[in-house]
Amino acid sequence: MGNSFGHLFRITTYGESHGGGVGVVIDGCPPLVEISEAEIQAELDRRRPGQSRITTPRNEADRCEIMSGVFDGKTTGTPISILVRNKDQRSKDYSEMKEKYRPSHADFTYDAKYGIRNYEGGGRSSARETIGRVAAGAIAKKILQQVAGVEIIGYVKRIKDCEAVDIDPNQVTLAQVESNIVRCPDAAAAEKMIALIDEIRKQKDSIGGVVECVARNVPVGLGMPVFDKLEADLAKGAMSLPASKGFEIGSGFAGTLLTGQEHNDEFTVDDQGQIRTKTNRSGGIQGGISNGENIVLRVAFKPTATIGKEQQTATRAGEEATLAAKGRHDPCVLPRAVPMVEAMVALVLCDHLLRHQGQCRTLS
Amino acid sequence: MGNSFGHLFRITTYGESHGGGVGVVIDGCPPLVEISEAEIQAELDRRRPGQSRITTPRNEADRCEIMSGVFDGKTTGTPISILVRNKDQRSKDYSEMKEKYRPSHADFTYDAKYGIRNYEGGGRSSARETIGRVAAGAIAKKILQQVAGVEIIGYVKRIKDCEAVDIDPNQVTLAQVESNIVRCPDAAAAEKMIALIDEIRKQKDSIGGVVECVARNVPVGLGMPVFDKLEADLAKGAMSLPASKGFEIGSGFAGTLLTGQEHNDEFTVDDQGQIRTKTNRSGGIQGGISNGENIVLRVAFKPTATIGKEQQTATRAGEEATLAAKGRHDPCVLPRAVPMVEAMVALVLCDHLLRHQGQCRTLS
Amino acid sequence: MGNSFGHLFRITTYGESHGGGVGVVIDGCPPLVEISEAEIQAELDRRRPGQSRITTPRNEADRCEIMSGVFDGKTTGTPISILVRNKDQRSKDYSEMKEKYRPSHADFTYDAKYGIRNYEGGGRSSARETIGRVAAGAIAKKILQQVAGVEIIGYVKRIKDCEAVDIDPNQVTLAQVESNIVRCPDAAAAEKMIALIDEIRKQKDSIGGVVECVARNVPVGLGMPVFDKLEADLAKGAMSLPASKGFEIGSGFAGTLLTGQEHNDEFTVDDQGQIRTKTNRSGGIQGGISNGENIVLRVAFKPTATIGKEQQTATRAGEEATLAAKGRHDPCVLPRAVPMVEAMVALVLCDHLLRHQGQCRTLS
Amino acid sequence: MGNSFGHLFRITTYGESHGGGVGVVIDGCPPLVEISEAEIQAELDRRRPGQSRITTPRNEADRCEIMSGVFDGKTTGTPISILVRNKDQRSKDYSEMKEKYRPSHADFTYDAKYGIRNYEGGGRSSARETIGRVAAGAIAKKILQQVAGVEIIGYVKRIKDCEAVDIDPNQVTLAQVESNIVRCPDAAAAEKMIALIDEIRKQKDSIGGVVECVARNVPVGLGMPVFDKLEADLAKGAMSLPASKGFEIGSGFAGTLLTGQEHNDEFTVDDQGQIRTKTNRSGGIQGGISNGENIVLRVAFKPTATIGKEQQTATRAGEEATLAAKGRHDPCVLPRAVPMVEAMVALVLCDHLLRHQGQCRTLS
Repeated sequence: MGNSFGHLFRITTYGESHGGGVGVVIDGCPPLVEISEAEIQAELDRRRPGQSRITTPRNEADRCEIMSGVFDGKTTGTPISILVRNKDQRSKDYSEMKEKYRPSHADFTYDAKYGIRNYEGGGRSSARETIGRVAAGAIAKKILQQVAGVEIIGYVKRIKDCEAVDIDPNQVTLAQVESNIVRCPDAAAAEKMIALIDEIRKQKDSIGGVVECVARNVPVGLGMPVFDKLEADLAKGAMSLPASKGFEIGSGFAGTLLTGQEHNDEFTVDDQGQIRTKTNRSGGIQGGISNGENIVLRVAFKPTATIGKEQQTATRAGEEATLAAKGRHDPCVLPRAVPMVEAMVALVLCDHLLRHQGQCRTLS
Repeated sequence: MGNSFGHLFRITTYGESHGGGVGVVIDGCPPLVEISEAEIQAELDRRRPGQSRITTPRNEADRCEIMSGVFDGKTTGTPISILVRNKDQRSKDYSEMKEKYRPSHADFTYDAKYGIRNYEGGGRSSARETIGRVAAGAIAKKILQQVAGVEIIGYVKRIKDCEAVDIDPNQVTLAQVESNIVRCPDAAAAEKMIALIDEIRKQKDSIGGVVECVARNVPVGLGMPVFDKLEADLAKGAMSLPASKGFEIGSGFAGTLLTGQEHNDEFTVDDQGQIRTKTNRSGGIQGGISNGENIVLRVAFKPTATIGKEQQTATRAGEEATLAAKGRHDPCVLPRAVPMVEAMVALVLCDHLLRHQGQCRTLS
Repeated sequence: MGNSFGHLFRITTYGESHGGGVGVVIDGCPPLVEISEAEIQAELDRRRPGQSRITTPRNEADRCEIMSGVFDGKTTGTPISILVRNKDQRSKDYSEMKEKYRPSHADFTYDAKYGIRNYEGGGRSSARETIGRVAAGAIAKKILQQVAGVEIIGYVKRIKDCEAVDIDPNQVTLAQVESNIVRCPDAAAAEKMIALIDEIRKQKDSIGGVVECVARNVPVGLGMPVFDKLEADLAKGAMSLPASKGFEIGSGFAGTLLTGQEHNDEFTVDDQGQIRTKTNRSGGIQGGISNGENIVLRVAFKPTATIGKEQQTATRAGEEATLAAKGRHDPCVLPRAVPMVEAMVALVLCDHLLRHQGQCRTLS
Repeated sequence: MGNSFGHLFRITTYGESHGGGVGVVIDGCPPLVEISEAEIQAELDRRRPGQSRITTPRNEADRCEIMSGVFDGKTTGTPISILVRNKDQRSKDYSEMKEKYRPSHADFTYDAKYGIRNYEGGGRSSARETIGRVAAGAIAKKILQQVAGVEIIGYVKRIKDCEAVDIDPNQVTLAQVESNIVRCPDAAAAEKMIALIDEIRKQKDSIGGVVECVARNVPVGLGMPVFDKLEADLAKGAMSLPASKGFEIGSGFAGTLLTGQEHNDEFTVDDQGQIRTKTNRSGGIQGGISNGENIVLRVAFKPTATIGKEQQTATRAGEEATLAAKGRHDPCVLPRAVPMVEAMVALVLCDHLLRHQGQCRTLS
């Protein structure tokens, strides 16, 4: 268990970094959605390694193949299976990884839990697993866009202590995000971030940061009290991503520094007679339900655990040892985390859209 | 949907602030756990209004009644139903709440989603709903304690900008937490926090803050990659609590300011030959699975939305209006949020304990 | 686990025959459904003991109380909790039931599974548990009736070898069913059935039979391949009822005696241009999805396990013994099983109605 | 939704008869189970078309490939993905199937539900879908065998009116079942059944029948009251198989002809002091929980819907038409249904084994 996500729009991912391949099965997708391998591939290309000099130099094509659920270019309502074959990389020597636990990785805990571990390239705990999420997210985005014009845009808000201050979540565009390799729509900050990552890579070290994501045009009414509050499901989605350490919605942790009077979003009525909030410290969600304002959230990603520097560790046999990663790795996961965060947001919103229709549109 | 939580140890809550009552059904509880209404009541008393001068002056006894699932003082493996009757408060005048949406509350979104809303005292979005969580959490705590000696201790870490710096999560005790009415085990900070809350109450305003929670003696191996990672389920549990705006595990957002070398938890082997980490920036979880170190997490709670000051708002009919809360309310939810956070942590850990036994102890 | 049923319209039941009470929580109910305790009580009265001389003489009022989820006479979209208090019957002597396992009851298996058992009156395995199902079913029926005019009518088709042959599922009415105490709309057969039950009761023995149920005006398109086929969920619902031993849909077991040519339902086009089947051996479901024809199913119920005659049994301590039930019991469960079957059919159809809306009405 | 089955040992199937392939993802499998593609293939070969002259002459190799979740020949506790590629059969002319609905097939209902249908070879409603079930069932069988020596043996009990009377479910062996092409362990009956199928095939017609299945050595205590009773989940599993029309456990429909005294299974204590039942009309399950006796169930399968004879039907455009199947098809699905029934029984028992360990072995 634990490899499925969503209640009506439900995905199940599988696969390890090595072996046959990784993939996803999407169950519950509405019928008649036009979707192509090319559209899915476009999202996967934003996620794939080797896309720029600040990501890992591993160059994996990650070509997706739709195995089922699409007919004549449209979804049929039956499970959509998407497969990305792994390249055969068995030649590599994994004897050290077999014995030594990489610090702050999943090696030790997988062994402790299951008594066995696919030690080749991280196995199931490899970030390759997120391919399935991003592929499914591409379809979720398409549905949300079609039904309500929803736009989901993620971007790098901070790398270590280098923060982008000049971004307006209400205005930011995908083109701005994709205009540089670090995916930060604040050009000046982006330049500094790239320099920072370049520098840390040379030091064989790594850094982390914060991804911000906005969802615009979200219909009012998505989310289900009390446990499946929209922010609760978004938090779960975000915190299930590799390397994530924190999540906040709207004003987040900083909001706790304000008083109620300063923090509350007063209501007003706009020109169209629509009830709106003057401010958006709620981040587009009140009482667990979307209120029609932009949903804004942030996810903290720790510095990549794999570093070239030597570290103390322990072996499977319970002996102390040292380890220095030799392979190619990302000095900073943030640029590639952007499409992953977007995918999780899309999956949550799409699932709640369907759930809302199921419960609340039945009698109308 | 949305009112159940957990996969094997699964709770379903119901009830509004007014009407018959609030309660919880716990399905999947292991048999032969000794439990009494008194033990559950003890936790409920930590949550109830009117417990001190810094919580709401509403004085609700909240007496719990076990309706099923316990026989001769022990759980039977069948559903445990726990009911807390509401006191009849129909006399109050709710005509203003019926029409005007309270800013940063769930009034507007419930109406928008369902087309109907129980406007008496917040209805389903009332914090009274958390009674069911805390009652179920009491049983989860008991199981965790019995199976592995797990201790779960929450406390107030920060109120507005007043932060407690002198707390060691590895040592803090329940007695220290309960030694003052703000539930902050740092006595000096507690005094300042209480003064701060007293002050803000006089101003008819409100404040928020951060609850920290530690779980000690958690067995290695709890948590299920990839979506049901332990931190993902903890995040969902925490972010489903009323007024929560952020969640972090271990180093959290601050951890993004470190490099990988600074952040990684190096492994070592202790005297008993047990593999341990030298530091605990992971917060007791690696790759979504508990590693045996203490689980440490923090939850941000916004300032209470209900304030006595006048605010701009809109009516159900779509007209602008002003509103000033007349009722009794908490100037700061933090002291009462502590047992709620503990309950959610206990529910997540207990569920994952059972899930782990189900999958991984079958062949052994 | 195991005490919830349904995916979007989801019920959770709790309670034992003795103790605080029995009840149900309904999560996911559409908002704005008009419902009253009286409507629910009407269904409960069809289920309750003591309703006629051929049911158990125990006379239980089983008054229901709506605890939450209904406001101003309408559902609010939040969980509906319905409670039926147990009468206090602690005075009775259960010392024999504590030690001796009743043949073909759940006493032995509950003890073997859980290591503990509420032995008072059958505990959780008591048919009192079905109160929650019938109460929830009343709401499901209301929704189905409102959305599509669905009618669900169950009746006794056979008692032991006494079969009613003169019933047309396409025409049968609730009034016909309720016109006699055995709930068989074939008056001549009903008379014989009642005599049969009278006779067996005098012999301190028991008998079983078959309930048939028809659902008319079911919309085309309900049901979800491949595991949640409509007939699969109906089968699960029916086979989860106490004492059920068999289930069939449409032609059922008898259909296996025909050839494909004899069995197939040929299509035709009716006056309104609607595609219909000439015959209905499919029982209203093809490929797991409703086809608009009447859904017809049958459920076999074994003779009541509790009988006044002496039987061989074993004690908890593992010693052989004899047992003769002294209490009041149903000589035949069929008349009271009719509303239970109807309830399960209503719950399945209502859940699938919502699921269908969720997946397939999103883009339209 | 609807394409997953099980709660802890959970499978998700995907795929249509044409297109990339069919497969299954198994989530929640215990780690350290030795499993090979060859073992899975052995079960798939019992299911595959073209295995004998009484099944469809389509000769499909159906080679399975394990894509993930197995390492060094053992399960790792992560999702096991198994893929069977489809052979490319696009050349065939499907223009008639595109327009005309096959009687008693899923063509009409899929179109009505989804507004689109993969009409090539039955699409998702093709029996090819059961490949995923049988592959997953092979692993479930292995686990059950290893943990408790469980044996699951299905066989043809009846073809049309030709019933095998000389089979003892307590003694029957797999070798006996596999000794003839109709999978009936009563040799004399098998001969007649084969002749019957040969005859009906020549007539371009089809026939159905009943599969019986026994599970031996099932541990006491599997099954979860009240909705997830073991017989309820078995019924759902069986009734989700293509062409199934009825299900019964133990005495089934025939049991309703007995009185309580005749039907009840009296308890006794065997030589080892174990509590047993003298008879087994309960079919190994009491109160929804296994009692240690053999589980015996029967599933009715209708005559194959696809027949070579001309039938009346309707077109997608709503016009009447005639249709005579030209393709190769099974005159009787029973021989190939045997491994499918076994697979569903194995999946249910394995899931409940894990669920039982999760809830009831935690404190012991």
